[in-house]
Amino acid sequence: MPQRQTVFFISDGTGITAQMLGHSLLTQFEGLEFQEITMPFIDGAEMVRSDCLPRIQAAMLASEPRPIVFSTLVNVEARAVLRESGALVLDFFEQFIVPLEAELGMHSTHTIGRSHGAMDKQEYRNRIEAVNFSMAHDDGGSHRDLSEADVILVGVSRSGKTPTSLYLALQFGVKAANYPLIPEDFERRALPEVLHQFRDKLYGLTISPERLREIRQERRPDSKYSDAENCRREVEHAESLMRREGIRWINSTTRSIEEIATTILRDINLARRSF
Amino acid sequence: MPQRQTVFFISDGTGITAQMLGHSLLTQFEGLEFQEITMPFIDGAEMVRSDCLPRIQAAMLASEPRPIVFSTLVNVEARAVLRESGALVLDFFEQFIVPLEAELGMHSTHTIGRSHGAMDKQEYRNRIEAVNFSMAHDDGGSHRDLSEADVILVGVSRSGKTPTSLYLALQFGVKAANYPLIPEDFERRALPEVLHQFRDKLYGLTISPERLREIRQERRPDSKYSDAENCRREVEHAESLMRREGIRWINSTTRSIEEIATTILRDINLARRSF
Repeated sequence: MPQRQTVFFISDGTGITAQMLGHSLLTQFEGLEFQEITMPFIDGAEMVRSDCLPRIQAAMLASEPRPIVFSTLVNVEARAVLRESGALVLDFFEQFIVPLEAELGMHSTHTIGRSHGAMDKQEYRNRIEAVNFSMAHDDGGSHRDLSEADVILVGVSRSGKTPTSLYLALQFGVKAANYPLIPEDFERRALPEVLHQFRDKLYGLTISPERLREIRQERRPDSKYSDAENCRREVEHAESLMRREGIRWINSTTRSIEEIATTILRDINLARRSF
Repeated sequence: MPQRQTVFFISDGTGITAQMLGHSLLTQFEGLEFQEITMPFIDGAEMVRSDCLPRIQAAMLASEPRPIVFSTLVNVEARAVLRESGALVLDFFEQFIVPLEAELGMHSTHTIGRSHGAMDKQEYRNRIEAVNFSMAHDDGGSHRDLSEADVILVGVSRSGKTPTSLYLALQFGVKAANYPLIPEDFERRALPEVLHQFRDKLYGLTISPERLREIRQERRPDSKYSDAENCRREVEHAESLMRREGIRWINSTTRSIEEIATTILRDINLARRSF
Protein backbone atom coordinates (compact mmCIF):
# COMPACT_ATOMS: atom_id res chain seq x y z
CA MET A 1 0.00 0.00 0.00
CA PRO A 2 1.45 3.37 -0.95
CA GLN A 3 1.39 6.06 1.67
CA ARG A 4 -1.77 8.12 1.32
CA GLN A 5 -1.34 11.30 3.22
CA THR A 6 -4.13 13.86 3.31
CA VAL A 7 -3.44 17.16 1.62
CA PHE A 8 -5.61 20.23 2.08
CA PHE A 9 -5.79 23.20 -0.23
CA ILE A 10 -7.29 26.04 1.75
CA SER A 11 -7.96 29.46 0.32
CA ASP A 12 -9.93 32.63 0.93
CA GLY A 13 -10.57 32.61 -2.82
CA THR A 14 -11.28 29.83 -5.26
CA GLY A 15 -8.38 27.64 -4.17
CA ILE A 16 -7.30 27.16 -7.77
CA THR A 17 -3.89 28.74 -7.27
CA ALA A 18 -3.22 26.87 -4.03
CA GLN A 19 -4.18 23.63 -5.69
CA MET A 20 -2.09 24.20 -8.80
CA LEU A 21 1.06 25.15 -6.96
CA GLY A 22 0.54 22.47 -4.32
CA HIS A 23 0.17 19.94 -7.11
CA SER A 24 3.33 21.05 -8.88
CA LEU A 25 5.20 20.63 -5.63
CA LEU A 26 3.77 17.22 -4.81
CA THR A 27 4.51 15.81 -8.27
CA GLN A 28 8.16 16.30 -7.32
CA PHE A 29 7.83 13.41 -4.89
CA GLU A 30 7.55 10.19 -6.76
CA GLY A 31 5.53 7.18 -5.75
CA LEU A 32 3.44 8.98 -3.16
CA GLU A 33 -0.30 9.22 -3.35
CA PHE A 34 -2.30 11.86 -1.64
CA GLN A 35 -5.89 12.26 -0.61
CA GLU A 36 -6.80 15.78 -1.63
CA ILE A 37 -9.36 18.09 -0.07
CA THR A 38 -9.96 21.60 -1.38
CA MET A 39 -11.69 24.19 0.80
CA PRO A 40 -12.37 27.45 -1.04
CA PHE A 41 -13.85 30.74 0.22
CA ILE A 42 -12.51 30.40 3.77
CA ASP A 43 -12.82 34.06 4.55
CA GLY A 44 -11.45 34.57 8.04
CA ALA A 45 -10.09 33.15 11.26
CA GLU A 46 -13.50 32.11 12.49
CA MET A 47 -14.25 30.07 9.41
CA VAL A 48 -10.85 28.41 9.67
CA ARG A 49 -11.79 27.42 13.19
CA SER A 50 -15.30 26.21 12.43
CA ASP A 51 -14.76 24.59 9.02
CA CYS A 52 -11.11 23.70 8.55
CA LEU A 53 -9.78 22.64 11.95
CA PRO A 54 -12.30 19.83 12.49
CA ARG A 55 -11.57 18.31 9.07
CA ILE A 56 -7.81 18.60 9.49
CA GLN A 57 -8.00 17.07 12.94
CA ALA A 58 -10.14 14.22 11.68
CA ALA A 59 -7.55 13.53 8.99
CA MET A 60 -4.84 13.73 11.64
CA LEU A 61 -6.51 10.96 13.63
CA ALA A 62 -7.30 8.81 10.61
CA SER A 63 -3.86 8.42 9.14
CA GLU A 64 -0.30 8.21 10.32
CA PRO A 65 1.69 10.94 8.61
CA ARG A 66 0.19 14.28 9.58
CA PRO A 67 -1.73 16.17 6.90
CA ILE A 68 -0.11 18.83 4.76
CA VAL A 69 -1.95 22.10 4.23
CA PHE A 70 -1.23 24.36 1.27
CA SER A 71 -2.96 27.67 1.74
CA THR A 72 -3.38 31.09 0.25
CA LEU A 73 -4.84 33.08 3.10
CA VAL A 74 -4.42 36.83 3.12
CA ASN A 75 -5.57 37.22 6.68
CA VAL A 76 -2.82 36.91 9.32
CA GLU A 77 -5.12 35.66 12.09
CA ALA A 78 -6.65 33.08 9.77
CA ARG A 79 -3.19 31.70 9.12
CA ALA A 80 -2.42 31.66 12.84
CA VAL A 81 -5.55 29.64 13.58
CA LEU A 82 -4.72 27.26 10.76
CA ARG A 83 -1.35 26.63 12.36
CA GLU A 84 -3.08 25.49 15.56
CA SER A 85 -4.21 22.42 13.62
CA GLY A 86 -0.82 20.78 14.06
CA ALA A 87 -0.58 20.00 10.36
CA LEU A 88 2.34 21.14 8.23
CA VAL A 89 1.02 24.47 6.99
CA LEU A 90 2.65 26.02 3.92
CA ASP A 91 1.07 29.34 3.08
CA PHE A 92 1.98 30.72 -0.32
CA PHE A 93 1.14 34.31 0.57
CA GLU A 94 2.95 34.54 3.85
CA GLN A 95 6.35 33.70 2.40
CA PHE A 96 6.23 36.28 -0.33
CA ILE A 97 4.21 39.23 0.93
CA VAL A 98 6.98 40.37 3.26
CA PRO A 99 9.77 40.54 0.65
CA LEU A 100 7.34 42.18 -1.76
CA GLU A 101 6.36 44.81 0.81
CA ALA A 102 10.03 45.60 1.35
CA GLU A 103 10.71 45.77 -2.38
CA LEU A 104 7.70 47.88 -3.29
CA GLY A 105 8.04 50.09 -0.23
CA MET A 106 4.40 49.79 0.76
CA HIS A 107 2.07 47.68 2.81
CA SER A 108 -0.15 45.11 1.17
CA THR A 109 -3.86 45.64 1.53
CA HIS A 110 -4.60 42.20 2.97
CA THR A 111 -7.74 42.14 0.93
CA ILE A 112 -9.40 38.86 0.20
CA GLY A 113 -10.37 37.57 -3.20
CA ARG A 114 -8.70 40.10 -5.40
CA SER A 115 -7.24 37.67 -7.88
CA HIS A 116 -10.15 35.76 -9.31
CA GLY A 117 -12.60 38.06 -7.61
CA ALA A 118 -13.14 41.78 -7.99
CA MET A 119 -12.20 42.03 -11.59
CA ASP A 120 -11.54 44.51 -14.28
CA LYS A 121 -14.89 44.74 -16.05
CA GLN A 122 -13.47 45.38 -19.50
CA GLU A 123 -10.97 42.50 -19.25
CA TYR A 124 -13.76 40.26 -18.12
CA ARG A 125 -15.96 41.26 -21.00
CA ASN A 126 -13.11 40.54 -23.43
CA ARG A 127 -12.74 37.13 -21.93
CA ILE A 128 -16.41 36.25 -22.30
CA GLU A 129 -16.33 37.62 -25.81
CA ALA A 130 -13.35 35.38 -26.57
CA VAL A 131 -15.29 32.36 -25.28
CA ASN A 132 -18.28 33.24 -27.44
CA PHE A 133 -16.01 33.75 -30.41
CA SER A 134 -14.26 30.43 -29.95
CA MET A 135 -17.57 28.61 -29.54
CA ALA A 136 -18.99 30.20 -32.70
CA HIS A 137 -15.81 29.42 -34.64
CA ASP A 138 -15.30 25.88 -33.44
CA ASP A 139 -14.69 23.32 -36.17
CA GLY A 140 -15.10 25.89 -38.95
CA GLY A 141 -18.56 26.66 -37.59
CA SER A 142 -18.69 30.16 -39.00
CA HIS A 143 -16.71 32.24 -41.46
CA ARG A 144 -18.08 35.48 -40.08
CA ASP A 145 -15.63 37.77 -38.35
CA LEU A 146 -12.73 35.37 -38.86
CA SER A 147 -10.62 38.48 -39.34
CA GLU A 148 -11.14 39.19 -35.65
CA ALA A 149 -9.43 35.96 -34.63
CA ASP A 150 -6.14 36.22 -32.75
CA VAL A 151 -5.28 32.76 -34.03
CA ILE A 152 -6.92 30.11 -36.22
CA LEU A 153 -5.95 26.55 -35.36
CA VAL A 154 -5.89 24.03 -38.18
CA GLY A 155 -5.43 20.28 -38.14
CA VAL A 156 -7.10 16.95 -38.83
CA SER A 157 -10.23 15.97 -36.94
CA ARG A 158 -9.35 15.07 -33.32
CA SER A 159 -5.92 16.61 -33.23
CA GLY A 160 -6.87 18.70 -30.19
CA LYS A 161 -8.14 21.89 -31.79
CA THR A 162 -11.34 22.33 -29.78
CA PRO A 163 -9.97 21.99 -26.23
CA THR A 164 -7.01 24.18 -27.16
CA SER A 165 -9.21 26.93 -28.61
CA LEU A 166 -11.46 26.92 -25.58
CA TYR A 167 -8.53 26.99 -23.20
CA LEU A 168 -6.97 29.92 -25.04
CA ALA A 169 -10.25 31.80 -24.76
CA LEU A 170 -11.09 30.94 -21.16
CA GLN A 171 -7.66 31.18 -19.63
CA PHE A 172 -6.11 33.93 -21.69
CA GLY A 173 -8.98 35.82 -23.33
CA VAL A 174 -7.62 34.95 -26.77
CA LYS A 175 -10.02 34.74 -29.70
CA ALA A 176 -9.11 31.33 -31.05
CA ALA A 177 -11.00 29.93 -34.01
CA ASN A 178 -10.38 26.45 -35.32
CA TYR A 179 -10.81 24.94 -38.74
CA PRO A 180 -10.53 21.28 -39.71
CA LEU A 181 -8.31 19.98 -42.48
CA ILE A 182 -10.29 17.27 -44.24
CA PRO A 183 -9.65 14.72 -46.99
CA GLU A 184 -11.09 17.12 -49.62
CA ASP A 185 -8.37 19.63 -48.76
CA PHE A 186 -5.73 16.95 -49.17
CA GLU A 187 -7.07 15.95 -52.57
CA ARG A 188 -7.04 19.55 -53.72
CA ARG A 189 -3.63 19.87 -52.06
CA ALA A 190 -4.68 23.27 -50.81
CA LEU A 191 -5.91 25.04 -47.73
CA PRO A 192 -9.64 25.63 -47.40
CA GLU A 193 -10.42 28.66 -49.56
CA VAL A 194 -11.61 30.88 -46.72
CA LEU A 195 -8.30 30.53 -44.86
CA HIS A 196 -6.09 31.94 -47.60
CA GLN A 197 -6.52 35.54 -46.58
CA PHE A 198 -5.76 34.69 -42.95
CA ARG A 199 -2.56 32.77 -43.53
CA ASP A 200 -0.63 34.78 -40.92
CA LYS A 201 -3.15 33.78 -38.24
CA LEU A 202 -2.90 30.05 -38.88
CA TYR A 203 -1.29 27.67 -36.42
CA GLY A 204 -1.27 23.92 -36.90
CA LEU A 205 -1.84 21.02 -34.55
CA THR A 206 -0.61 17.61 -35.47
CA ILE A 207 -0.69 14.28 -33.66
CA SER A 208 0.86 10.85 -34.01
CA PRO A 209 -1.20 8.56 -36.29
CA GLU A 210 -1.30 5.88 -33.55
CA ARG A 211 -2.74 8.25 -30.96
CA LEU A 212 -5.16 9.67 -33.51
CA ARG A 213 -6.38 6.18 -34.28
CA GLU A 214 -6.96 5.47 -30.57
CA ILE A 215 -9.02 8.63 -30.16
CA ARG A 216 -11.04 8.12 -33.32
CA GLN A 217 -11.56 4.46 -32.52
CA GLU A 218 -13.39 5.49 -29.35
CA ARG A 219 -15.64 7.79 -31.33
CA ARG A 220 -16.41 5.62 -34.34
CA PRO A 221 -15.04 2.13 -33.83
CA ASP A 222 -13.90 0.22 -36.90
CA SER A 223 -14.82 2.91 -39.38
CA LYS A 224 -12.85 4.35 -42.26
CA TYR A 225 -12.49 7.44 -40.02
CA SER A 226 -10.58 5.46 -37.38
CA ASP A 227 -8.75 3.11 -39.75
CA ALA A 228 -5.02 3.03 -39.01
CA GLU A 229 -3.94 3.52 -42.61
CA ASN A 230 -6.41 6.37 -43.06
CA CYS A 231 -5.17 8.11 -39.91
CA ARG A 232 -1.59 7.75 -41.07
CA ARG A 233 -2.41 9.20 -44.45
CA GLU A 234 -4.44 12.14 -43.10
CA VAL A 235 -1.65 13.14 -40.72
CA GLU A 236 0.94 12.85 -43.48
CA HIS A 237 -1.14 14.96 -45.85
CA ALA A 238 -1.89 17.56 -43.21
CA GLU A 239 1.76 17.91 -42.29
CA SER A 240 2.92 18.24 -45.86
CA LEU A 241 0.16 20.78 -46.54
CA MET A 242 1.24 22.82 -43.53
CA ARG A 243 4.88 22.52 -44.57
CA ARG A 244 4.08 23.74 -48.07
CA GLU A 245 2.06 26.63 -46.77
CA GLY A 246 4.65 27.62 -44.20
CA ILE A 247 2.33 27.12 -41.24
CA ARG A 248 3.97 26.64 -37.86
CA TRP A 249 2.67 23.67 -35.94
CA ILE A 250 2.95 21.76 -32.71
CA ASN A 251 2.54 18.06 -32.04
CA SER A 252 -0.18 17.54 -29.45
CA THR A 253 0.42 13.82 -28.85
CA THR A 254 2.14 13.95 -25.48
CA ARG A 255 1.34 17.50 -24.51
CA SER A 256 -1.30 18.80 -22.16
CA ILE A 257 -3.79 21.46 -23.20
CA GLU A 258 -1.88 23.95 -21.06
CA GLU A 259 1.39 23.18 -22.79
CA ILE A 260 -0.09 23.42 -26.25
CA ALA A 261 -1.88 26.69 -25.49
CA THR A 262 1.11 28.40 -23.89
CA THR A 263 3.43 27.26 -26.68
CA ILE A 264 1.09 28.80 -29.24
CA LEU A 265 0.91 32.06 -27.30
CA ARG A 266 4.68 32.21 -27.15
CA ASP A 267 5.11 31.39 -30.84
CA ILE A 268 2.58 33.90 -32.12
CA ASN A 269 4.04 36.38 -29.70
CA LEU A 270 0.72 37.24 -28.18
CA ALA A 271 0.82 38.95 -24.82
CA ARG A 272 -1.03 36.93 -22.26
CA ARG A 273 -4.02 38.50 -20.74
CA SER A 274 -4.41 36.62 -17.53
CA PHE A 275 -7.18 35.97 -15.09
CA MET B 1 2.22 58.53 -14.04
CA PRO B 2 1.82 55.42 -11.94
CA GLN B 3 4.92 53.33 -11.29
CA ARG B 4 5.22 50.65 -13.95
CA GLN B 5 7.67 48.08 -12.79
CA THR B 6 8.46 45.10 -14.98
CA VAL B 7 7.40 41.72 -13.65
CA PHE B 8 8.62 38.46 -15.12
CA PHE B 9 6.97 35.09 -14.74
CA ILE B 10 9.59 32.48 -15.55
CA SER B 11 8.92 28.77 -15.52
CA ASP B 12 10.31 25.48 -16.75
CA GLY B 13 6.70 24.56 -17.49
CA THR B 14 3.78 26.57 -18.85
CA GLY B 15 4.20 29.48 -16.45
CA ILE B 16 0.51 29.39 -15.60
CA THR B 17 1.06 28.66 -11.92
CA ALA B 18 3.80 31.28 -11.57
CA GLN B 19 1.60 33.84 -13.24
CA MET B 20 -1.48 33.05 -11.18
CA LEU B 21 0.26 33.17 -7.83
CA GLY B 22 2.35 36.17 -8.83
CA HIS B 23 -0.85 37.94 -9.80
CA SER B 24 -2.58 37.14 -6.55
CA LEU B 25 0.37 38.60 -4.69
CA LEU B 26 0.59 41.76 -6.79
CA THR B 27 -3.11 42.51 -6.48
CA GLN B 28 -2.34 42.98 -2.78
CA PHE B 29 -0.53 46.20 -3.65
CA GLU B 30 -2.98 48.83 -4.65
CA GLY B 31 -2.44 51.52 -7.23
CA LEU B 32 0.60 49.92 -8.80
CA GLU B 33 0.75 48.91 -12.42
CA PHE B 34 3.08 46.33 -13.78
CA GLN B 35 4.43 45.46 -17.17
CA GLU B 36 4.21 41.69 -17.34
CA ILE B 37 6.38 39.30 -19.30
CA THR B 38 5.84 35.54 -19.18
CA MET B 39 8.60 33.19 -20.27
CA PRO B 40 7.52 29.53 -20.31
CA PHE B 41 9.52 26.35 -21.00
CA ILE B 42 12.82 27.70 -19.67
CA ASP B 43 14.34 24.31 -19.17
CA GLY B 44 17.75 24.83 -17.63
CA ALA B 45 20.51 27.14 -16.49
CA GLU B 46 21.74 27.72 -20.00
CA MET B 47 18.39 28.87 -21.27
CA VAL B 48 18.06 31.20 -18.28
CA ARG B 49 21.38 32.71 -19.29
CA SER B 50 20.66 32.99 -23.01
CA ASP B 51 16.96 33.92 -22.93
CA CYS B 52 16.06 35.40 -19.56
CA LEU B 53 19.06 37.40 -18.37
CA PRO B 54 19.21 39.70 -21.42
CA ARG B 55 15.52 40.58 -21.13
CA ILE B 56 15.72 41.15 -17.39
CA GLN B 57 18.79 43.29 -17.77
CA ALA B 58 17.15 45.32 -20.51
CA ALA B 59 14.20 45.93 -18.19
CA MET B 60 16.62 46.84 -15.43
CA LEU B 61 18.15 49.57 -17.57
CA ALA B 62 14.85 50.83 -18.90
CA SER B 63 13.07 51.61 -15.67
CA GLU B 64 13.90 52.76 -12.20
CA PRO B 65 12.63 50.19 -9.73
CA ARG B 66 14.34 46.89 -10.48
CA PRO B 67 12.23 44.13 -12.02
CA ILE B 68 10.53 41.46 -9.96
CA VAL B 69 10.80 37.85 -11.09
CA PHE B 70 8.32 35.20 -9.99
CA SER B 71 9.57 31.79 -10.97
CA THR B 72 8.82 28.12 -10.70
CA LEU B 73 12.13 26.51 -11.63
CA VAL B 74 12.86 23.03 -10.41
CA ASN B 75 16.52 23.18 -11.35
CA VAL B 76 18.81 24.58 -8.65
CA GLU B 77 21.44 25.91 -11.07
CA ALA B 78 18.79 27.58 -13.20
CA ARG B 79 17.62 29.46 -10.11
CA ALA B 80 21.18 30.44 -9.26
CA VAL B 81 21.74 31.91 -12.71
CA LEU B 82 18.45 33.76 -12.49
CA ARG B 83 19.63 35.36 -9.29
CA GLU B 84 22.66 36.79 -11.11
CA SER B 85 20.23 39.08 -12.92
CA GLY B 86 20.08 41.40 -9.94
CA ALA B 87 16.27 41.44 -9.98
CA LEU B 88 14.21 40.48 -6.97
CA VAL B 89 13.75 36.75 -7.59
CA LEU B 90 10.95 34.95 -5.77
CA ASP B 91 10.92 31.28 -6.64
CA PHE B 92 7.81 29.43 -5.56
CA PHE B 93 9.45 26.02 -5.61
CA GLU B 94 12.57 26.85 -3.70
CA GLN B 95 10.72 28.02 -0.61
CA PHE B 96 8.59 24.94 -0.26
CA ILE B 97 10.54 22.00 -1.57
CA VAL B 98 12.84 21.96 1.46
CA PRO B 99 10.13 21.79 4.15
CA LEU B 100 8.28 19.22 2.03
CA GLU B 101 11.38 17.06 1.71
CA ALA B 102 11.81 17.15 5.47
CA GLU B 103 8.14 16.33 6.06
CA LEU B 104 7.91 13.52 3.53
CA GLY B 105 11.31 12.10 4.42
CA MET B 106 12.49 11.90 0.85
CA HIS B 107 14.23 13.89 -1.82
CA SER B 108 12.28 15.56 -4.57
CA THR B 109 13.01 14.40 -8.08
CA HIS B 110 13.80 17.84 -9.47
CA THR B 111 12.03 16.83 -12.61
CA ILE B 112 10.79 19.47 -14.96
CA GLY B 113 7.29 19.80 -16.29
CA ARG B 114 5.51 17.26 -14.19
CA SER B 115 2.48 19.34 -13.35
CA HIS B 116 0.93 20.30 -16.65
CA GLY B 117 3.23 17.96 -18.49
CA ALA B 118 3.63 14.21 -18.34
CA MET B 119 0.13 13.39 -17.35
CA ASP B 120 -2.06 10.58 -16.26
CA LYS B 121 -3.47 9.31 -19.53
CA GLN B 122 -6.82 8.24 -18.12
CA GLU B 123 -7.34 11.53 -16.31
CA TYR B 124 -6.48 13.37 -19.44
CA ARG B 125 -8.92 11.35 -21.48
CA ASN B 126 -11.64 12.09 -18.93
CA ARG B 127 -10.92 15.73 -19.25
CA ILE B 128 -11.17 15.78 -23.03
CA GLU B 129 -14.34 13.73 -22.75
CA ALA B 130 -15.75 16.32 -20.36
CA VAL B 131 -14.96 19.08 -22.84
CA ASN B 132 -16.66 17.18 -25.65
CA PHE B 133 -19.63 16.52 -23.41
CA SER B 134 -19.98 20.14 -22.40
CA MET B 135 -19.70 21.30 -26.00
CA ALA B 136 -22.36 18.84 -27.15
CA HIS B 137 -24.65 19.79 -24.28
CA ASP B 138 -24.23 23.54 -24.51
CA ASP B 139 -27.46 25.52 -24.53
CA GLY B 140 -29.61 22.40 -24.45
CA GLY B 141 -27.88 21.22 -27.64
CA SER B 142 -28.54 17.57 -27.06
CA HIS B 143 -30.70 15.45 -24.77
CA ARG B 144 -28.57 12.38 -25.35
CA ASP B 145 -26.61 11.05 -22.41
CA LEU B 146 -27.81 13.85 -20.12
CA SER B 147 -27.81 11.19 -17.43
CA GLU B 148 -24.01 11.20 -17.64
CA ALA B 149 -23.81 14.85 -16.65
CA ASP B 150 -22.17 15.66 -13.33
CA VAL B 151 -24.18 18.87 -13.27
CA ILE B 152 -26.73 20.61 -15.48
CA LEU B 153 -26.67 24.39 -15.27
CA VAL B 154 -29.95 26.20 -15.85
CA GLY B 155 -30.71 29.88 -16.19
CA VAL B 156 -31.93 32.58 -18.56
CA SER B 157 -30.04 33.31 -21.75
CA ARG B 158 -26.74 35.12 -21.00
CA SER B 159 -26.62 34.35 -17.31
CA GLY B 160 -23.16 32.81 -17.69
CA LYS B 161 -23.96 29.14 -18.30
CA THR B 162 -21.67 28.52 -21.27
CA PRO B 163 -18.38 29.87 -19.89
CA THR B 164 -19.07 28.19 -16.57
CA SER B 165 -19.76 24.80 -18.17
CA LEU B 166 -16.63 25.01 -20.28
CA TYR B 167 -14.52 26.05 -17.33
CA LEU B 168 -15.85 23.16 -15.24
CA ALA B 169 -14.95 20.76 -18.03
CA LEU B 170 -11.54 22.17 -18.93
CA GLN B 171 -10.26 22.96 -15.48
CA PHE B 172 -11.82 20.20 -13.46
CA GLY B 173 -12.84 17.48 -15.91
CA VAL B 174 -16.47 17.86 -14.85
CA LYS B 175 -19.19 16.95 -17.33
CA ALA B 176 -21.27 20.09 -17.19
CA ALA B 177 -24.31 20.42 -19.44
CA ASN B 178 -26.34 23.59 -19.63
CA TYR B 179 -29.93 24.22 -20.47
CA PRO B 180 -31.63 27.55 -21.02
CA LEU B 181 -34.76 28.66 -19.20
CA ILE B 182 -36.88 30.47 -21.78
CA PRO B 183 -40.13 32.46 -21.79
CA GLU B 184 -42.12 29.31 -22.75
CA ASP B 185 -40.98 27.64 -19.54
CA PHE B 186 -42.11 30.65 -17.54
CA GLU B 187 -45.54 30.61 -19.19
CA ARG B 188 -45.96 26.94 -18.40
CA ARG B 189 -44.52 27.68 -14.96
CA ALA B 190 -42.53 24.47 -15.23
CA LEU B 191 -39.06 23.20 -15.96
CA PRO B 192 -38.34 21.93 -19.47
CA GLU B 193 -39.80 18.43 -19.63
CA VAL B 194 -36.49 16.65 -20.22
CA LEU B 195 -34.98 18.06 -17.02
CA HIS B 196 -37.55 16.58 -14.64
CA GLN B 197 -35.77 13.28 -14.25
CA PHE B 198 -32.45 15.01 -13.58
CA ARG B 199 -33.65 17.38 -10.89
CA ASP B 200 -30.83 16.40 -8.53
CA LYS B 201 -28.24 17.42 -11.09
CA LEU B 202 -29.62 20.91 -11.66
CA TYR B 203 -27.83 24.03 -10.52
CA GLY B 204 -29.08 27.52 -11.32
CA LEU B 205 -27.32 30.68 -12.42
CA THR B 206 -29.00 33.99 -11.96
CA ILE B 207 -27.91 37.54 -12.71
CA SER B 208 -29.06 41.05 -11.93
CA PRO B 209 -31.58 42.34 -14.50
CA GLU B 210 -29.45 45.45 -15.07
CA ARG B 211 -26.33 43.46 -15.90
CA LEU B 212 -28.34 41.07 -18.03
CA ARG B 213 -29.70 43.99 -19.99
CA GLU B 214 -26.20 45.35 -20.60
CA ILE B 215 -24.99 42.00 -21.93
CA ARG B 216 -28.03 41.40 -24.11
CA GLN B 217 -27.93 44.97 -25.38
CA GLU B 218 -24.49 44.28 -26.85
CA ARG B 219 -25.78 41.21 -28.61
CA ARG B 220 -29.10 42.48 -29.91
CA PRO B 221 -29.41 46.20 -29.32
CA ASP B 222 -32.88 47.62 -28.71
CA SER B 223 -34.70 44.32 -29.09
CA LYS B 224 -37.38 42.73 -26.94
CA TYR B 225 -34.59 40.33 -25.86
CA SER B 226 -32.56 43.16 -24.36
CA ASP B 227 -35.47 45.28 -23.15
CA ALA B 228 -35.05 46.26 -19.49
CA GLU B 229 -38.55 45.25 -18.45
CA ASN B 230 -38.25 41.93 -20.28
CA CYS B 231 -34.91 41.18 -18.59
CA ARG B 232 -36.39 42.02 -15.20
CA ARG B 233 -39.35 39.73 -15.81
CA GLU B 234 -37.27 36.81 -17.10
CA VAL B 235 -34.96 36.92 -14.10
CA GLU B 236 -37.91 37.13 -11.73
CA HIS B 237 -39.64 34.19 -13.39
CA ALA B 238 -36.48 32.11 -13.48
CA GLU B 239 -35.78 32.72 -9.81
CA SER B 240 -39.30 31.87 -8.73
CA LEU B 241 -39.24 28.75 -10.90
CA MET B 242 -35.95 27.65 -9.31
CA ARG B 243 -37.30 28.46 -5.86
CA ARG B 244 -40.44 26.38 -6.48
CA GLU B 245 -38.40 23.48 -7.80
CA GLY B 246 -35.91 23.62 -4.98
CA ILE B 247 -32.94 24.27 -7.26
CA ARG B 248 -29.85 25.79 -5.66
CA TRP B 249 -28.49 28.78 -7.48
CA ILE B 250 -25.73 31.33 -7.52
CA ASN B 251 -25.80 34.93 -8.68
CA SER B 252 -23.17 35.43 -11.37
CA THR B 253 -23.38 39.23 -11.56
CA THR B 254 -20.20 40.17 -9.73
CA ARG B 255 -18.46 36.82 -9.74
CA SER B 256 -15.69 35.54 -11.97
CA ILE B 257 -16.00 32.29 -13.87
CA GLU B 258 -13.54 30.73 -11.42
CA GLU B 259 -15.63 31.76 -8.44
CA ILE B 260 -18.86 30.50 -9.94
CA ALA B 261 -17.32 27.18 -10.98
CA THR B 262 -15.64 26.49 -7.64
CA THR B 263 -18.77 27.46 -5.71
CA ILE B 264 -20.78 24.98 -7.74
CA LEU B 265 -18.22 22.22 -7.16
CA ARG B 266 -18.32 22.89 -3.46
CA ASP B 267 -22.12 22.97 -3.32
CA ILE B 268 -22.69 19.80 -5.29
CA ASN B 269 -19.92 18.22 -3.27
CA LEU B 270 -18.01 17.06 -6.26
CA ALA B 271 -14.40 16.16 -5.72
CA ARG B 272 -12.16 18.27 -7.88
CA ARG B 273 -10.12 16.48 -10.41
CA SER B 274 -7.36 18.87 -11.12
CA PHE B 275 -4.88 19.43 -13.87
